[in-house]
Amino acid sequence: MQKVSGLQLNANTQVFQESTLIARFETVRAATLAIAAPLSPEDMVVQSMLEASPIKWHLAHTSWFFETFILIENLPAYEVFNPHFKTLFNSYYVSLGACHPRPQRGMLTRPSLSDILDYRKHVDMAIHHLLEQVVSAQVKSLLELGLQHEQQHQELMLTDIKHLFFHNPLFPAYLCTDLPSAAPASSLEWIHYEAATRPVGHAGEGFHFDNETPRYLTHIPSFAITKRLITNGEYLAFIEAGAYRQTRWWLAEAVDWINREAVRHPLYWHYQDGKWFEFTLHGLVPLQLDSPICHINYFEADAFARFAGARLPTEFEWEHVAAEMPVLTANPHRLHPQGGGEGGSHQPLQLYAQVWQWTCSAYAAYPGFSPSAGAVGEYNGKFMVNQYVLRGSSVATPRGHARPTYRNFFPTGARWQFTGLRLAKSL
Amino acid sequence: MQKVSGLQLNANTQVFQESTLIARFETVRAATLAIAAPLSPEDMVVQSMLEASPIKWHLAHTSWFFETFILIENLPAYEVFNPHFKTLFNSYYVSLGACHPRPQRGMLTRPSLSDILDYRKHVDMAIHHLLEQVVSAQVKSLLELGLQHEQQHQELMLTDIKHLFFHNPLFPAYLCTDLPSAAPASSLEWIHYEAATRPVGHAGEGFHFDNETPRYLTHIPSFAITKRLITNGEYLAFIEAGAYRQTRWWLAEAVDWINREAVRHPLYWHYQDGKWFEFTLHGLVPLQLDSPICHINYFEADAFARFAGARLPTEFEWEHVAAEMPVLTANPHRLHPQGGGEGGSHQPLQLYAQVWQWTCSAYAAYPGFSPSAGAVGEYNGKFMVNQYVLRGSSVATPRGHARPTYRNFFPTGARWQFTGLRLAKSL
Amino acid sequence: MQKVSGLQLNANTQVFQESTLIARFETVRAATLAIAAPLSPEDMVVQSMLEASPIKWHLAHTSWFFETFILIENLPAYEVFNPHFKTLFNSYYVSLGACHPRPQRGMLTRPSLSDILDYRKHVDMAIHHLLEQVVSAQVKSLLELGLQHEQQHQELMLTDIKHLFFHNPLFPAYLCTDLPSAAPASSLEWIHYEAATRPVGHAGEGFHFDNETPRYLTHIPSFAITKRLITNGEYLAFIEAGAYRQTRWWLAEAVDWINREAVRHPLYWHYQDGKWFEFTLHGLVPLQLDSPICHINYFEADAFARFAGARLPTEFEWEHVAAEMPVLTANPHRLHPQGGGEGGSHQPLQLYAQVWQWTCSAYAAYPGFSPSAGAVGEYNGKFMVNQYVLRGSSVATPRGHARPTYRNFFPTGARWQFTGLRLAKSL
Amino acid sequence: MQKVSGLQLNANTQVFQESTLIARFETVRAATLAIAAPLSPEDMVVQSMLEASPIKWHLAHTSWFFETFILIENLPAYEVFNPHFKTLFNSYYVSLGACHPRPQRGMLTRPSLSDILDYRKHVDMAIHHLLEQVVSAQVKSLLELGLQHEQQHQELMLTDIKHLFFHNPLFPAYLCTDLPSAAPASSLEWIHYEAATRPVGHAGEGFHFDNETPRYLTHIPSFAITKRLITNGEYLAFIEAGAYRQTRWWLAEAVDWINREAVRHPLYWHYQDGKWFEFTLHGLVPLQLDSPICHINYFEADAFARFAGARLPTEFEWEHVAAEMPVLTANPHRLHPQGGGEGGSHQPLQLYAQVWQWTCSAYAAYPGFSPSAGAVGEYNGKFMVNQYVLRGSSVATPRGHARPTYRNFFPTGARWQFTGLRLAKSL
Repeated sequence: MQKVSGLQLNANTQVFQESTLIARFETVRAATLAIAAPLSPEDMVVQSMLEASPIKWHLAHTSWFFETFILIENLPAYEVFNPHFKTLFNSYYVSLGACHPRPQRGMLTRPSLSDILDYRKHVDMAIHHLLEQVVSAQVKSLLELGLQHEQQHQELMLTDIKHLFFHNPLFPAYLCTDLPSAAPASSLEWIHYEAATRPVGHAGEGFHFDNETPRYLTHIPSFAITKRLITNGEYLAFIEAGAYRQTRWWLAEAVDWINREAVRHPLYWHYQDGKWFEFTLHGLVPLQLDSPICHINYFEADAFARFAGARLPTEFEWEHVAAEMPVLTANPHRLHPQGGGEGGSHQPLQLYAQVWQWTCSAYAAYPGFSPSAGAVGEYNGKFMVNQYVLRGSSVATPRGHARPTYRNFFPTGARWQFTGLRLAKSL
Repeated sequence: MQKVSGLQLNANTQVFQESTLIARFETVRAATLAIAAPLSPEDMVVQSMLEASPIKWHLAHTSWFFETFILIENLPAYEVFNPHFKTLFNSYYVSLGACHPRPQRGMLTRPSLSDILDYRKHVDMAIHHLLEQVVSAQVKSLLELGLQHEQQHQELMLTDIKHLFFHNPLFPAYLCTDLPSAAPASSLEWIHYEAATRPVGHAGEGFHFDNETPRYLTHIPSFAITKRLITNGEYLAFIEAGAYRQTRWWLAEAVDWINREAVRHPLYWHYQDGKWFEFTLHGLVPLQLDSPICHINYFEADAFARFAGARLPTEFEWEHVAAEMPVLTANPHRLHPQGGGEGGSHQPLQLYAQVWQWTCSAYAAYPGFSPSAGAVGEYNGKFMVNQYVLRGSSVATPRGHARPTYRNFFPTGARWQFTGLRLAKSL
Repeated sequence: MQKVSGLQLNANTQVFQESTLIARFETVRAATLAIAAPLSPEDMVVQSMLEASPIKWHLAHTSWFFETFILIENLPAYEVFNPHFKTLFNSYYVSLGACHPRPQRGMLTRPSLSDILDYRKHVDMAIHHLLEQVVSAQVKSLLELGLQHEQQHQELMLTDIKHLFFHNPLFPAYLCTDLPSAAPASSLEWIHYEAATRPVGHAGEGFHFDNETPRYLTHIPSFAITKRLITNGEYLAFIEAGAYRQTRWWLAEAVDWINREAVRHPLYWHYQDGKWFEFTLHGLVPLQLDSPICHINYFEADAFARFAGARLPTEFEWEHVAAEMPVLTANPHRLHPQGGGEGGSHQPLQLYAQVWQWTCSAYAAYPGFSPSAGAVGEYNGKFMVNQYVLRGSSVATPRGHARPTYRNFFPTGARWQFTGLRLAKSL
Repeated sequence: MQKVSGLQLNANTQVFQESTLIARFETVRAATLAIAAPLSPEDMVVQSMLEASPIKWHLAHTSWFFETFILIENLPAYEVFNPHFKTLFNSYYVSLGACHPRPQRGMLTRPSLSDILDYRKHVDMAIHHLLEQVVSAQVKSLLELGLQHEQQHQELMLTDIKHLFFHNPLFPAYLCTDLPSAAPASSLEWIHYEAATRPVGHAGEGFHFDNETPRYLTHIPSFAITKRLITNGEYLAFIEAGAYRQTRWWLAEAVDWINREAVRHPLYWHYQDGKWFEFTLHGLVPLQLDSPICHINYFEADAFARFAGARLPTEFEWEHVAAEMPVLTANPHRLHPQGGGEGGSHQPLQLYAQVWQWTCSAYAAYPGFSPSAGAVGEYNGKFMVNQYVLRGSSVATPRGHARPTYRNFFPTGARWQFTGLRLAKSL
């Protein structure tokens, strides 16, 4: 369930200057607070489901990460802010001792938000002290890890608060700005790719998680992929053709899920007075047919693909397609996918900054994958079962946190992330 | 699960002057706010289990009660504070329309606490306007109902916040004052009563709930009852004699409960470093052996009684015992039972203001019971199944909210109320 | 869940001659085999739900009872048939050691039915040997208990096999004979009773279970009761008036049950091609509107009573009504209630041999109730919580196993017994 | 959960003569009855868990397959044996109409075993009539499919009956012959393989399931694999080193499973009087340390591999290893893995006829996989999610039903099949 995987500790990944690091540290930490800014202390304490965490917990846990993996060991005379936090804000690093149980993160009305903000300042100041000195490459590497980790939580903060607000019948908006109209969707074109034997996985010096390595050779048979993402309108046609009432499009396990939970539409769709609406971080809005479909799980993505006479891409097909394409960044003031983009005839659109795209690849170790040493890397492979890989990035992904080799992953039932799909076919 | 039952609407129950009513209204409403005073907005938004409600919800619901049952119909030109509140803060009066689902009361981070406090002021002011005029006996009666209803919620606020804080590993204290030592427990004496045919149920003009009526004749065979409540020390001896590991003391359904939840001690007991502690509203304190046992459910009370070679009293035995005794009131600054009291040789102690006392009487209608008309009385009998009657009152019961005929009731598994026991025997 | 309660061990209850006892023993044991006669070994091994037992298990357990409580201790040189049976066929007497888990009774494909029939013969022969001698009053008393116990299981065998066959889409009939038409239902008359102070519970020498004692004085206020049982037709009118879709008739816990299980009609009703049918031990038959309603649980009985502007009788009202009435016996070849009967203007009909009648009395100990010594009586009070008393007897109750003071009991959700209702009112 | 996948319908897969087909048909059908021979009708009617089916159901369903997919369409004048069987014995082909619910297969005490055996004869005779004529290649192909399908059920019959008998405290033996001692286990050697780009999947004319195609090119990096299977002794050492009590060896989802079900050892292990035993189809026997470990699920196989500093092989590594090795067949009179075998220095042992071997490959479609037309092929991809591939074969796999490309698959929690592991490493 946990998606924040182990982290790559190669000291040589990326060599920042201390001054650059400080600037980057400040930027990332400030971005986290900016995400929390529209929220009240009450908004930040509640846990809306087992898989989500309170915003306050995110604020604390990301600070705990720096304290635990960097400050305690590397800053002489560092004083732990509060010894209870070791347990309260440990997510799942069990070699560090007990964790406060995940389902009870929402019970933590104390420490208060104000205490947690003090904790953040305490950690920030200590990191500043640390970086006033020359630090080892390993510490720099750990610091970069901490920042990447915090960016993952920034996306989770947005999806967790969206989940919470959706369960409030007042449908509060996280952002008060109006959501602009979606760009008109182009017709659904296919781009063809020849068979290729090519390396997949991360190469070079930039930051990456360990699950992107080792890079290795794989053979990709010829295939086609859709130029753009599937839209709400196309998914609505699926629903109107009987989607959730017909077993033939669905995996056997998906049929059980539909029956058990009486599913009839994607997570945040809402039917009212004869019309479809969609709950967004900008509030409840009429369903925009040209926007990419969003908040569907693996079962729904897979069923739509079968309905469309296609299939989901493999993660390597996606990586091959994205290899030469630019990595786009989302506009943080429009927290909902809206499609659009332009490109040449052989150029896929909407790879990034719209919705994560389900692949048909089970989340597994690459051949030769080996976990890092110590608690940081202790559980690298811990989530590599019964989950599927998503590629790309979403409207909620922070700048600098997407790349062609990035492997996001969620269980087949998860719907609260910004998840959609594009189609593929073997040729 | 809901214990706030329907209310008696006899116009003649109690005739207050408007000025008296206003004073009483202000007192009760202020007491509710006083209970919330030590809490932060964060403390007040979380729901720690299905059966508990957030403090903010209690604050709103008790105001909703006055708005819905009195103001809308009786104050011309009353303006509803917020039309959404009709649904959000309806507890279970389904004839009034939909309710926000009980398990999702903790999702309501909005409206904010501040909005709810404004709502309370809005309602308070409207009630003042209403009482500036001469009002009918029926409205006075409804007002009294609203106040009694609010007092029930005052007790629930304390038990709900206790439950929440217990699930925080920091074990925060609701009251920062130290808990004094328990009074020494006297030896366990029995008081004998002759068989009697006597009326039970409420008589006279004072306020009462409908489940206390109609008063009717019943025959009570001779019996004995313990002069005081059972203590922690006595219950600990039961545990040390193997209580939870031996099926022979327990009802068959209790054995299932013990096995399913791996129960080994009362709800708020906590074993640490070789010693027993108890979580209280004053924080975690060493278990006081002379205090009345508290936070046990029906199964535990019944099993202890069997272990002690006795049984639980019937609700009518209790009522008979209490008939001539004074109704004591708890000290609101000591929110934990501490035993004590003095009395003559035939005078039971600790009937009130310590812990509610489980009886072996299933919660049922008195012969001839008939529900009141309209939404207030719609569900009078709705909870009269698979629950058991508790008598007396607890440290959390507000002044004026206890009497010999009062029937509290909870399901057999409930432990988060201040519930204990005294023993009885047939002679 | 277990309804076969502890048994009264007073040596003086009933003094049979050894020869009379033998005849009675043979009759009862033969009746058990007669019930199994229409079934195949396959029919007898399956457990259709947690609350039901396989027929083979009933055949063995009733023999285990005689072996365990009589033969081992009283017949010198008795050889235990199979030492494993001590555990396999113990129902819930935990002081005798471990029990095979109730939910896994249906796993016992071995020992075979043929082995169990040999076990019965072995026990029968040993009882014969025992009764060739003069035996003590206590042994006679235990023997009578064993026979009463076996009769309780005879009724359970019929209700358990009915439950199993209902879950077979072929709807097999247990009896191949046609079910005659129901007797025409008379109009629903009320019989009035004056208030009375009278003893309730068993008196005299005949056999009785311990839960019927001690007899004690109780006051019964004036009331009225319907002369006959409620019919399928009357219950159908309730359904057609919206029964299961309207919360207002139902206890709060019943609403949860209806929603959770999507209940729309009594257990064995079946709607097909626009018509109602009812599954019976004679197979699937068109619903007979004049037959007593059957296979409803406490919630349904209570809701119908409220719909009808009435309530369920208390168990003492029922006992008072039945006090002077004859105890009728069912025709074992017509295993479905069919109403009928004639009587004077103040004489209730259908008290026995149709359906057990739900009362509003929670199952509880009578004042002064004390459990018998030893394993037989060890768990007398074990089921006295969250269950309700039923009075009368059903079409499946064996001859000689009904009386005015008999207390049957089941949890509020149980529907697979022959359970129906008559109405009462306070006057 | 269902493992009997869609079947390949290529008319050219295997061209039998009619006379050869008849002989083969008789052999396979007789083998099914031989598996049922040691069982009583009672043994054959019970369903011990959701995932298992009664033996009687297997006997009927395998006949239903021939009736439904061959006889009805291809044998003029064929008379359906019983129209209810269409629903009762349909497993999951929903395009053929409703199925009797899987969890209620154990309710079918009727039709009797004797009826089912008549059904088998009826179908057998009809197939004989069909094959007295010249039949089309498509019918031959369907007939072969039916036989392969029946062989899959033969293995399931053995694992289902083992599961049932294990839940009987008498631990009955399916086979009364003694289990010989395991062969001594050789030391654990590793065999190394160079990287290779090679085709995987089925080629040629022999029978295969559709999930083995299309054959396609894949790149396999260099790796090593253990020469033999992991033994009970090696797994016991894992347990004694704290296996189930230490989170560090386990996937996060596995930790949840261990905690939820309090797992402490493999499924059929049994600790008694200070010694380990194992339940087998030959009864309860002392644990043989040199036998291959068996009845472990994916989580346990994966955790053991991590404990051993290795990993599970991919399905393509296994296929590569097995490519040139002979396919061994189990001895049907020894239904428990016993290790053994001899081979050269680069020759893996125990690939077949011992235990299915978990791979780390998620069960997924091969690139270009396309489902067959019609009901037979309707659900080819239906189970391709959240399951993992097993390779090889077991002691319960029928002769002729194993090959290097065969893909068995089960969910990560399944333990009742004969499942074990061998280790692999990337080089």
